[in-house]
Amino acid sequence: MNIEIINIGDELLIGQVVNTNASWMALELNKVGLNVNKVTIISDNAREIEDSINLALKYSDCVLITGGLGPTKDDITKITLANMFESTLVENEKALENIKRIFSQRGYVLSETNRKQALMPEKSLYIENLVGTAAGMCFEKDNKLIISMPGVPFEMKQMMCLHVIPLLLKHYKPMAIYHKTIITQGIGESFLSDLIEDFEDSLPKHIRLAYLPSANMLRLRLSARGEDDKKTKDELKKEVEKLLPLIDKYFIGFDETDLSQILAKKLKENKLTIASAESCTGGNIAHIITSNAGASEYYKGSIIAYSNEVKINILGVDPKSIEEYGAVSQEVAQQMALGAVQRLGVDYAMATTGIAGPDGGSQEKPVGTVWVAVANKKGEVIAKKSNFASNRTNFIDRTSNEALAMLIRFI
Amino acid sequence: MNIEIINIGDELLIGQVVNTNASWMALELNKVGLNVNKVTIISDNAREIEDSINLALKYSDCVLITGGLGPTKDDITKITLANMFESTLVENEKALENIKRIFSQRGYVLSETNRKQALMPEKSLYIENLVGTAAGMCFEKDNKLIISMPGVPFEMKQMMCLHVIPLLLKHYKPMAIYHKTIITQGIGESFLSDLIEDFEDSLPKHIRLAYLPSANMLRLRLSARGEDDKKTKDELKKEVEKLLPLIDKYFIGFDETDLSQILAKKLKENKLTIASAESCTGGNIAHIITSNAGASEYYKGSIIAYSNEVKINILGVDPKSIEEYGAVSQEVAQQMALGAVQRLGVDYAMATTGIAGPDGGSQEKPVGTVWVAVANKKGEVIAKKSNFASNRTNFIDRTSNEALAMLIRFI
Repeated sequence: MNIEIINIGDELLIGQVVNTNASWMALELNKVGLNVNKVTIISDNAREIEDSINLALKYSDCVLITGGLGPTKDDITKITLANMFESTLVENEKALENIKRIFSQRGYVLSETNRKQALMPEKSLYIENLVGTAAGMCFEKDNKLIISMPGVPFEMKQMMCLHVIPLLLKHYKPMAIYHKTIITQGIGESFLSDLIEDFEDSLPKHIRLAYLPSANMLRLRLSARGEDDKKTKDELKKEVEKLLPLIDKYFIGFDETDLSQILAKKLKENKLTIASAESCTGGNIAHIITSNAGASEYYKGSIIAYSNEVKINILGVDPKSIEEYGAVSQEVAQQMALGAVQRLGVDYAMATTGIAGPDGGSQEKPVGTVWVAVANKKGEVIAKKSNFASNRTNFIDRTSNEALAMLIRFI
Repeated sequence: MNIEIINIGDELLIGQVVNTNASWMALELNKVGLNVNKVTIISDNAREIEDSINLALKYSDCVLITGGLGPTKDDITKITLANMFESTLVENEKALENIKRIFSQRGYVLSETNRKQALMPEKSLYIENLVGTAAGMCFEKDNKLIISMPGVPFEMKQMMCLHVIPLLLKHYKPMAIYHKTIITQGIGESFLSDLIEDFEDSLPKHIRLAYLPSANMLRLRLSARGEDDKKTKDELKKEVEKLLPLIDKYFIGFDETDLSQILAKKLKENKLTIASAESCTGGNIAHIITSNAGASEYYKGSIIAYSNEVKINILGVDPKSIEEYGAVSQEVAQQMALGAVQRLGVDYAMATTGIAGPDGGSQEKPVGTVWVAVANKKGEVIAKKSNFASNRTNFIDRTSNEALAMLIRFI
């Protein structure tokens, strides 16, 4: 069973937008045992759309299409599909209702252009878009499904999760696929690979190990495929049990997609509250934490202290410490963390101060130098110096993950 | 003149790696007037590689291939190309020299496997890889170029810039291509499309308009193509001049990729400082602002006031206002903005308070309700209520862009 993904959009072909849709879709499909064999990006051009779909149907069992469903003139996917599958466009009641719901939610009046978005090809199955006005649709030909979705990532994602993947699992027989993700922190890819070389060499062919490095964090994903559901699951479990003792020192959690989720679990279990005092990460730690629903249960707030005045006036950092040791120093990091605990009235706080670059470095403290501190309300505090020299975004991400990992271990 | 890009690699098809190569290549090719009409991702499979190249040669004038040139057994692009173009593999002196140079640089001993990387197809043109051991190669068939490059991004990039683009410019006659991106805010795609319908209908065929919506912001891209460089440029300019008065109310800037860059420009020009007081955006505005290098010039800090205590104690919001109107209200948003101006000592501040969801909504204030305020140090303040109901991430992004746009207009 093979799936071809076709992403439609001129913006993808002039390099204005990176095609993250394809990799996200491939990852999600793989998780449930469905295989992607090809991805094609084409422009909003009727002949090319038609040619690509016909070609995909020759080699693949299923075609998933994104893009070209907007209300504007440059979007022609729907009409092209309707022509291909000899289907006239008729107003779909459910689609119209959905569009009206979204417009009234946003307090807008329905325009003629938007009403047209409720026109759907007669012979297609309507797929609801809960978060946008462009509905999806599914055609069937020679027992193969051809499914069209919007190109806006969050609209496509909810449609995939709620409707498309269930539809595919009903129509096709997936393999048994089990994944286990193991999150490590504090060790680089090549060192970890040396550490577990024997384990990796001994893995049976149908169990694969993938290294998924991100900023200052490394996820290992073990994937087992097989015909027999229970057997596949058990085999995977056994390999995980073999792996864990080897990486004990760096292990930080399972399956969650990021450190903030591991932290959230721990905080909820122990009914603790946290805050952050951020200089160089500029609010990124706060942003990561508050991206999780329910964060208000354990997260009270943060002080983003980019300037020294804010460090002094709001966090209570001693101006003499800044003068003597500099803003990027152990002393200032620790005072920031302790200041945040006290001023924001929380159990624990993280603090960051460093040089994100590209400018601002010196010989003694080059770009990439950063101090991270964590403190609790008993007044205990630890600090760690690192150098995360690379580009600005990566520096911020690595520092944020360092702070989250330090706090997880500190609690 | 049309180019097809073929990216080869299993890791791209299981979603482990996002295909950033294609968008980078498309962007660079577009800059010099070369057009990409299709991108295909396939696995390391000889039949698929051959089929895809043959198909590309049918529709396109040039094929650029990346990936599958490594020294290990799973990399088969070179041997597949050699077979396709009836070429035997022979040791290439320049390639061998380059490999030896790189190995001695890294302090490694040359292995047999790596020496094999110096084998090149007889009938191909050798393309040097300054930063890696996998050489590139160029075949010619029916006056069309087929070029194979390594998949490692920084190796591919230097090869493109140093060798491939010059090769293409010599072989093909590039078109004149000009783009202009116009950023608007505060109007949805369909409404804007209605507004400029006549303009859009009157566009000549070689000038195209694209709508690029993101969270609460809409970029319009006009692209002109032609044979004559000056004429194409002038035509584009004329169309931009026609378009601008129609969208005056929503226009916010040119060409920058996001609102924070437009804001940064304005702040630097006027030597102003800013801060934010964020509840529902949880540090995302601070994060967006500090993602820009040099932000410390105009950005002092932020208070992330997730809990009411922080709103009261650090920002100085009146507890009576929270009790009377609720934390999500015009009064609280305004007090937060004014509090940030005062406590952080800046010229301007943005404030957000809202219900990000999925929980916490009521009939009166459903999930998605948000108040955004901007204030200055004269004590002037404006606030605006919106409903950005969707998912949590999108709510945060839309609210952040609303705040940035309001501030840009307020200054």
